[in-house]
Amino acid sequence: MRQRNKPWADDFLKENAQLIIPNPSEYKGKWSTLFGNNNPIHVEVGTGKGQFIVGMAKQYPNINFIGIELAKSIVVTAAQKVLEAGSSNVLLLNENAGDLVEIFAENEVSTIYLNFSDPWPKNRHEKRRLTYKAFLDQYKTILKQSGQVIFKTDNRGLFEYSLVSLTDYNMKLEEVNLDLHAIQDESNIMTEYEERFSAKGQPIYRLKASF
Amino acid sequence: MRQRNKPWADDFLKENAQLIIPNPSEYKGKWSTLFGNNNPIHVEVGTGKGQFIVGMAKQYPNINFIGIELAKSIVVTAAQKVLEAGSSNVLLLNENAGDLVEIFAENEVSTIYLNFSDPWPKNRHEKRRLTYKAFLDQYKTILKQSGQVIFKTDNRGLFEYSLVSLTDYNMKLEEVNLDLHAIQDESNIMTEYEERFSAKGQPIYRLKASF
Ligand SMILES: C[S@@+](CC[C@H](N)C(=O)[O-])C[C@H]1O[C@@H](n2cnc3c(N)ncnc32)[C@H](O)[C@@H]1O
Ligand SMILES: C[S@@+](CC[C@H](N)C(=O)[O-])C[C@H]1O[C@@H](n2cnc3c(N)ncnc32)[C@H](O)[C@@H]1O
Repeated sequence: MRQRNKPWADDFLKENAQLIIPNPSEYKGKWSTLFGNNNPIHVEVGTGKGQFIVGMAKQYPNINFIGIELAKSIVVTAAQKVLEAGSSNVLLLNENAGDLVEIFAENEVSTIYLNFSDPWPKNRHEKRRLTYKAFLDQYKTILKQSGQVIFKTDNRGLFEYSLVSLTDYNMKLEEVNLDLHAIQDESNIMTEYEERFSAKGQPIYRLKASF
Repeated sequence: MRQRNKPWADDFLKENAQLIIPNPSEYKGKWSTLFGNNNPIHVEVGTGKGQFIVGMAKQYPNINFIGIELAKSIVVTAAQKVLEAGSSNVLLLNENAGDLVEIFAENEVSTIYLNFSDPWPKNRHEKRRLTYKAFLDQYKTILKQSGQVIFKTDNRGLFEYSLVSLTDYNMKLEEVNLDLHAIQDESNIMTEYEERFSAKGQPIYRLKASF
């Protein structure tokens, strides 16, 4: 995702520390207190510009959403969307998903969304893919027993890799869709990338898996 | 697959009992003796008109192939192809794949191919799909420890179902390809259905899985 240089981003983050939480590990095991209720917590990894998380938050007001986005210049755009929408059930973290177990306690999370994650097609970059086993270790730790990983992408290579990686990790596929937009799924909230690639006629892949 | 009425089929089967084995359960555990060597045995379920098995037999002369085809009028066409090609490493069975454990002993088979199996899209027909758990029970019994099920299809619904069914059965996906003809795989032998559907531009899906 293109990252524009945004000199005001640091100030923006400071001013919106109630939305983009600066020291998330302080809330490990206590995210419910921050939301002020015991609703289930869903985490999106690689939130991008926030269209998905804002749409989901509106559609599911009784779920608490936490979006994790590594790029500072991108998380601010997501934050602006959350502020515009006035969503009270969204928090954002400007963090690396490699640290999930520092941020969430065991069984604290109900669902993890991976949307159009960077494909890292080269073999030597396998470890960076968000469905590599080291990431699955983390998801398994923070997810509740019945929790799900829900992964959408247009990238065939990453999806094929992920099917193998997840089952090699003994995960169960609960549902697989190899052309998401061929079915009428009113509840599907599109991400920015999803809009772009489905407009080009590319099939969108989705899987739901549990440990 | 269209089944023409072939009044001569019964005679043909009788005359070619060395190729289309009439009482296969007699050879349970003894297929190697019939082939006259100890080469690995690969079984294709739903062989159709035989293009795949004849092509594979030529490509892999040190593997013994057994094709199972339920429809009498279709197995004779496959048999004619085998005779024309003069393949000595192919046998055919005019049987129902529901009886695999009557035909093969435990661990007797190295690979099972499912090619463009009938999709049975209605929920109430789930039990007829060749990747339904009752069939997986059989494959597991007759396959060697490291044996694989290799499944190709153009049918999205059946492939999605199969991914879920196989992983629910704790099978591992060794390899998944969601557009087989997008990669250059010289060793891929096309089936009749594969030629037809890939010519229409439909993606061909393939998975390799083990127990
Ligand atoms: C290809 S974009 C997709 C954005 C959005 N999910 C969509 O579907 O439109 C991937 C996003 O993930 C973020 N990202 C990549 N690796 C990450 C990581 N390890 N932790 C957090 N975010 C990450 C990138 O900065 C980028 O914004
Ligand atoms: C859709 S055709 C595909 C034929 C061929 N494999 C191909 O790819 O061109 C499915 C074939 O499987 C056979 N078949 C279906 N169910 C079967 C079963 N339970 N046992 C054996 N053969 C079966 C059908 O008679 C038919 O010839």
